[in-house]
Amino acid sequence: MEKTEIVEIAQAELKNPILIEGLPGLGMVGRIAVRYLTKQLTAERLAFLYSPHFPYYVVVNKNGAARLLRGEFRFWKNATGESDVVFLSGDSQAQTIEGQYEVADAILEFCKTHGVKTIVSLGGFRVETENTPKVMAAATAQPLLDKAIAAGAEISKAGNPIVGTAGLLLGMAHFKDVEALCLLSETRGYLPDPRSAKSMLAVLVKLLGLDVDLAGLDKEIEKAERIVTRMQQIEQRREEQQQKTKEQEEDKVKYIS
Amino acid sequence: MEKTEIVEIAQAELKNPILIEGLPGLGMVGRIAVRYLTKQLTAERLAFLYSPHFPYYVVVNKNGAARLLRGEFRFWKNATGESDVVFLSGDSQAQTIEGQYEVADAILEFCKTHGVKTIVSLGGFRVETENTPKVMAAATAQPLLDKAIAAGAEISKAGNPIVGTAGLLLGMAHFKDVEALCLLSETRGYLPDPRSAKSMLAVLVKLLGLDVDLAGLDKEIEKAERIVTRMQQIEQRREEQQQKTKEQEEDKVKYIS
Amino acid sequence: MEKTEIVEIAQAELKNPILIEGLPGLGMVGRIAVRYLTKQLTAERLAFLYSPHFPYYVVVNKNGAARLLRGEFRFWKNATGESDVVFLSGDSQAQTIEGQYEVADAILEFCKTHGVKTIVSLGGFRVETENTPKVMAAATAQPLLDKAIAAGAEISKAGNPIVGTAGLLLGMAHFKDVEALCLLSETRGYLPDPRSAKSMLAVLVKLLGLDVDLAGLDKEIEKAERIVTRMQQIEQRREEQQQKTKEQEEDKVKYIS
Amino acid sequence: MEKTEIVEIAQAELKNPILIEGLPGLGMVGRIAVRYLTKQLTAERLAFLYSPHFPYYVVVNKNGAARLLRGEFRFWKNATGESDVVFLSGDSQAQTIEGQYEVADAILEFCKTHGVKTIVSLGGFRVETENTPKVMAAATAQPLLDKAIAAGAEISKAGNPIVGTAGLLLGMAHFKDVEALCLLSETRGYLPDPRSAKSMLAVLVKLLGLDVDLAGLDKEIEKAERIVTRMQQIEQRREEQQQKTKEQEEDKVKYIS
Repeated sequence: MEKTEIVEIAQAELKNPILIEGLPGLGMVGRIAVRYLTKQLTAERLAFLYSPHFPYYVVVNKNGAARLLRGEFRFWKNATGESDVVFLSGDSQAQTIEGQYEVADAILEFCKTHGVKTIVSLGGFRVETENTPKVMAAATAQPLLDKAIAAGAEISKAGNPIVGTAGLLLGMAHFKDVEALCLLSETRGYLPDPRSAKSMLAVLVKLLGLDVDLAGLDKEIEKAERIVTRMQQIEQRREEQQQKTKEQEEDKVKYIS
Repeated sequence: MEKTEIVEIAQAELKNPILIEGLPGLGMVGRIAVRYLTKQLTAERLAFLYSPHFPYYVVVNKNGAARLLRGEFRFWKNATGESDVVFLSGDSQAQTIEGQYEVADAILEFCKTHGVKTIVSLGGFRVETENTPKVMAAATAQPLLDKAIAAGAEISKAGNPIVGTAGLLLGMAHFKDVEALCLLSETRGYLPDPRSAKSMLAVLVKLLGLDVDLAGLDKEIEKAERIVTRMQQIEQRREEQQQKTKEQEEDKVKYIS
Repeated sequence: MEKTEIVEIAQAELKNPILIEGLPGLGMVGRIAVRYLTKQLTAERLAFLYSPHFPYYVVVNKNGAARLLRGEFRFWKNATGESDVVFLSGDSQAQTIEGQYEVADAILEFCKTHGVKTIVSLGGFRVETENTPKVMAAATAQPLLDKAIAAGAEISKAGNPIVGTAGLLLGMAHFKDVEALCLLSETRGYLPDPRSAKSMLAVLVKLLGLDVDLAGLDKEIEKAERIVTRMQQIEQRREEQQQKTKEQEEDKVKYIS
Repeated sequence: MEKTEIVEIAQAELKNPILIEGLPGLGMVGRIAVRYLTKQLTAERLAFLYSPHFPYYVVVNKNGAARLLRGEFRFWKNATGESDVVFLSGDSQAQTIEGQYEVADAILEFCKTHGVKTIVSLGGFRVETENTPKVMAAATAQPLLDKAIAAGAEISKAGNPIVGTAGLLLGMAHFKDVEALCLLSETRGYLPDPRSAKSMLAVLVKLLGLDVDLAGLDKEIEKAERIVTRMQQIEQRREEQQQKTKEQEEDKVKYIS
């Protein structure tokens, strides 16, 4: 494998398809969102993306089966709406600069081959906040951006860089006659953040007119918040312990003196 | 995108064109200079340079439009003088060694295609000084260097390396039958340095016989100097605070003893 | 040398061959195992693998002869069993991400050319334990995994990454119509670990029905354990010395006070 | 420039030529040796080697002329002996792993084109010693090694890696039907080490039957040793000063107590 390759594993006639990309990134927001949608819509496997720019290890599943890191395309036939949806998530992003451009290029070429004219890429946007995560939007075309605003997103602030595949798909879209929108949801980014993903999905399902219930994410959100609380408690106890040790040492110094 | 690409967005018949390159670098000197000239001369867009060796993110503008990092060529028709001018500035330099050579190669190939026979590359030269920045010159041909000296530059000291695109354009010029001059203006290099850019522009406009008023830079210079002053004050206060804390701690030690 | 190359140095008609790979890795477990087998079976040289992704130095032997780092294929004609064996060990793994994929690709291409349908890759698995090392297995096909379990291996836990060539051979096997099994033996991984290699070999010889006496490894194991013991003693003495110095300094502080 | 390129700048009919390579490395030993020989023999320029794997800057000479980093081939017609000599020195080695293999490959291809059948590569070997530097030898062919031994070299110890171009030329020599010898001279390696280069040249001129007076290096050796002495004095004074400061502070502590 010398270059990034997309291996198709199903044939699908797709009606005016839209691609939704959510590879791993800040807070895993895009990946959580795409995985939730594919599960809810029981989207089927379409293709795998392999790249020599992914980390050089394989993962083992619970049956002892090993497989390469990869991106996974799934598709969903939209019986009532006007556009079928292709989803892209996966294990990793490319680890080198050139690899990042190469992977984005391969995805766009895949879009061209399958008649995808619109891409929505998903990612996280780092902020320190306790509030409901806001969703920012940037796009390559004004009408697409307007639709995102109408669905509840805000215009991304000028100067914000969008890093990785989510960004490059926008930057390189015009080379392949594709329009692209990026939704970035606020997240602290330390840990997988399903709450941020839920905010983003609220915008996305409205934007695409999808009939998907987001309540299924609440359990994951609760679990994630329990982890955060526990980590904060551990941190606090550690600090108290340090404070105590320090005081004891100061007492000792006084004694020595 | 597998390689550095230059995408032309305008057709222009250029008369004996000269290329002036000022990509981001030390003190942003070259970029400030080129951006100032293109604004003053209302130079028009000619082409974009894209590279898989640029950082892998996109930038968003105030309208929420995202675009790839890129170099931007502009041109200016010189009605009275003997040479039209092509300008090159942009967002970034290549991030890898091979990328640096590839980008310089692409620029030189573009010069060849458009009949550019002379390149002036601009950059900063790191010194700690409060004086008016001096401008150093190095070149691939003696007559070109002589003209720079006549316009107020000094000969660059032997052994000075010229790093990045500004340097490689000189080093690789003879492969494409081009002559090249590099002007390096003194700068501390920490922050964008319009004062250094102004010194350089004084040499450059004289060298090329351009009728450009440089007073427009003074406002930017003033602003940059206010930033430096403020940063120095912050630094000074921080040091005073540290001194005070130290004295208090020494008092405490005496007390304990 | 622009790409990884395999240079054949012998012609061999191989009967239903199996490849056993043990390049350097954690605890050198795979390499020790392969080297032991090739010595016991007096396997003959078949080919060398060279790569521009190996470290850029040469090694010198005791006669002053210098040679490139390389992988070495050896073969063994299995007079009584149903499969001949090809072994792969060597000096190094590829040092870059793309190099790792390229080397694995070259090995698999070599397998295809020589009719190898089954690969067993060997590696170490990091644990802190004093017990007899357990051997974990992962595979691309269930029957192969079942055989490994029957020979004494356990199923590798889900989520364990298998890093480097040992892993990529599994991940990329299906591109070349090959089946692959990976055996990972527990090791602390700091030092060459022949005890871990012996555990792995016990599984491997049973799995392949090889008649190889493993007692020859005991001397190496003893030697390795003497080294570990000596290192622990040095470490302990160092700690005692530090403790003593600290106490002396505390005495001094009391005296000063 | 996408790949390493060798640009010929002179035509020379060479009689049974030998290549002597001394690119920058440990103690600059190889480079000092080659530069001394080319000066003494007034060897003429033959070709330049350029590579996109060299550092991405240009150097400026005392006339303000800028040029790319490069390797320089020179040749010397040996009127009385049986072999003409081609020398290779330069500014830098390749900065990437693949670049190192690519540059060595280009040099060997150049050898093939010009009928070079024997290469002597020169480098430094790190030791802490005050004695006259010994010269170690490794080779791809026994007769060549024997000649080096006869000329005063010792056989390099087993296991010594030879890093960079000096090593890879040996490792890759057999791909181009060339024989190669490497001479490594002992050096501390911190600073350019003409004394080490002289030891090496003593072996080399004897080996090749060259009539070159090495006394010309003594001035450089003296100068290098003055620099080392001065640096040691500075270091010693700095240590004394630190000791004094420490004592003063201890006095202060006693006073405070």
